Amino acid sequence: MTKTFYPPHRVLMGPGPSDVSPRVLEALGRPTIGHLDPAFIGLMDDIKRLLQYAFQTENELTLPVSAPGSAGMEAVFVNLVQAGDKVIVCQNGAFGGRMKENVERCGGTAVMVSSEWGAAVDPGKVEEALLANPDAVAVAFVHAETSTGVRSDAKSLAALAHQHDCLAIVDAVTSLGGIELKVDEWEIDAIYSGTQKCLSCVPGISPVSFSPRAVERIKSRRERVQSWFLDMNLIMDYWGSGQKRSYHHTAPVNAMYALHEALSILEEEGLEQSWARHAQHHHTLVEGLEAMGLQMAVAKESRLPQLNAVKVPEGVDETAIRNALLSDWNLEIGAGLGPLAGQIWRIGLMGHSADATHVRLLMAALQDVLP
Amino acid sequence: MTKTFYPPHRVLMGPGPSDVSPRVLEALGRPTIGHLDPAFIGLMDDIKRLLQYAFQTENELTLPVSAPGSAGMEAVFVNLVQAGDKVIVCQNGAFGGRMKENVERCGGTAVMVSSEWGAAVDPGKVEEALLANPDAVAVAFVHAETSTGVRSDAKSLAALAHQHDCLAIVDAVTSLGGIELKVDEWEIDAIYSGTQKCLSCVPGISPVSFSPRAVERIKSRRERVQSWFLDMNLIMDYWGSGQKRSYHHTAPVNAMYALHEALSILEEEGLEQSWARHAQHHHTLVEGLEAMGLQMAVAKESRLPQLNAVKVPEGVDETAIRNALLSDWNLEIGAGLGPLAGQIWRIGLMGHSADATHVRLLMAALQDVLP
Repeated sequence: MTKTFYPPHRVLMGPGPSDVSPRVLEALGRPTIGHLDPAFIGLMDDIKRLLQYAFQTENELTLPVSAPGSAGMEAVFVNLVQAGDKVIVCQNGAFGGRMKENVERCGGTAVMVSSEWGAAVDPGKVEEALLANPDAVAVAFVHAETSTGVRSDAKSLAALAHQHDCLAIVDAVTSLGGIELKVDEWEIDAIYSGTQKCLSCVPGISPVSFSPRAVERIKSRRERVQSWFLDMNLIMDYWGSGQKRSYHHTAPVNAMYALHEALSILEEEGLEQSWARHAQHHHTLVEGLEAMGLQMAVAKESRLPQLNAVKVPEGVDETAIRNALLSDWNLEIGAGLGPLAGQIWRIGLMGHSADATHVRLLMAALQDVLP
Repeated sequence: MTKTFYPPHRVLMGPGPSDVSPRVLEALGRPTIGHLDPAFIGLMDDIKRLLQYAFQTENELTLPVSAPGSAGMEAVFVNLVQAGDKVIVCQNGAFGGRMKENVERCGGTAVMVSSEWGAAVDPGKVEEALLANPDAVAVAFVHAETSTGVRSDAKSLAALAHQHDCLAIVDAVTSLGGIELKVDEWEIDAIYSGTQKCLSCVPGISPVSFSPRAVERIKSRRERVQSWFLDMNLIMDYWGSGQKRSYHHTAPVNAMYALHEALSILEEEGLEQSWARHAQHHHTLVEGLEAMGLQMAVAKESRLPQLNAVKVPEGVDETAIRNALLSDWNLEIGAGLGPLAGQIWRIGLMGHSADATHVRLLMAALQDVLP
């Protein structure tokens, strides 16, 4: 017979999931109710309002997709991109490449604007691409590149997109809750995130939001959305206002309890305070790492506080250090991806993991395991 | 500030979710670990083996899709259907219609074989459709129609598909764990289910399995799978064997703890015993309902033990009864869908909800609220 699974007690300081608050875990395990229960409808209304707060938006179409961030990404692209559409896709890490995949699988053409892994998206290059492709319908970029720890200037990039009559599509998987993000003020048209980063909720759900302009685009599509599961025309009726909801799919009820609690914690702290907390502990971490002789991989002005890319010192076995942190300290940090594999570690200070205790623990652990 | 959400304590006897075992809820709320943690890889191996047991298959490509049953359905169709493909779709309720949507959104043509809502799929009609459409590549049908409470003969339908060189695609959302289902013996090529029915796990995950023949089809596709998130060519590498796994998406870690526990409970009881238990309590329920003067909506030979469609007696307000059950007894049953809306109630005896206590409670509650 299979034994029950008791997870080891890890400290999560990688690229996500981050440490989940006991409050969220407790909410997660409450008894399941039906997805059409009147009490659940009330919960959905709360979640929608709390997500609007987290995204700083009044977008009516703001909801959690019932699947992880990659499905949130896909939800945005399958709804907004039609066969033949041209989309400017900015790539400065792993997730821009995934956007390209999505555009192409929707039958669209991705015009790539590539920057080095570890650098921010260059607005000058984006403008060039927009001038060279006046028929582009959207500009897509990653606000906080999880693979490199780089912040791009979402406000400027969105403004640029609008100057050229394009929708602004933003990957906010790692940014939501961790750094400044203002969907309405910055006029972002479509955005998706994940629950397991700076919201410190369990993985598996992807908050999304669409501007009225994006909704207009979705409603006036020439062809049906290729995904039934992610078709916002159908999901709108399930996550719409009021008590009348059309059944679409069975919502992941318990995950919604958890998301509700995680968003409530964010509301209690205040969004600006959360951003400030991430910045504060990031500064302490960087000071500590540099005092140990380690170097940050990303230029100061582009660093994400919630995801710190640190150069692996010459002669140090990258994997051995991560393994030692995990086995001796139960502490998880992340490896580099793609061209940065073996070159960097990724240290997350996300949500519940962004506090002084985590920073101190990491410093002590690194001092212990580094040669 | 938002208040924490304490769900009302319901008894779930609708079409799903069913009552979740406290063991599963407790597992769900255990601390989150990373989706690439060595301990998590071990958990994935366990889940795969347990799903193979539940499906009665040795299919290597057996795994839980990280999203609800509708995404499991979509995973099967986007991987197996290409533009121009013709698929025989059997419809005898709501979910056959959703299969049609899926085939069409993949650019395929659905040849519909329709039966009355409440009747089983007619193998004779399927054979006619196969003879009339020798170019069809697959036959798709629902084993246990959640919208009507009807069981179709999956074994015969799969055999028929193979006689005509078609793949057999089966919706087992409500059947898995509740009635006999033998993927290898019946030569089913692609099958999907849900966690929130007879497995009595929380909603949000969809177990799927593909035969070697289906995998061959997926690997030799002319065009890329239109969904990146559901592309089995990529997911195979994440859920493959051994310690080497390619990151695809962030798995819903805590939902996997829960699924592992729910499947372990099924293994402890034994699959045949679980089928027998569902049948036993179904018989008691039907006897009780008939003794009260109520009538079953489905012919005896096609009834699903886990989902009992009961006719609403003439002159009785269908909604008022369900509302009274919910408000006075905290007991959830389901309404009819589509042409059966207002005509039937749907009473679930699924998984953890299939026991004598639930049957007695329902009888007492119905006697109380019926006029």
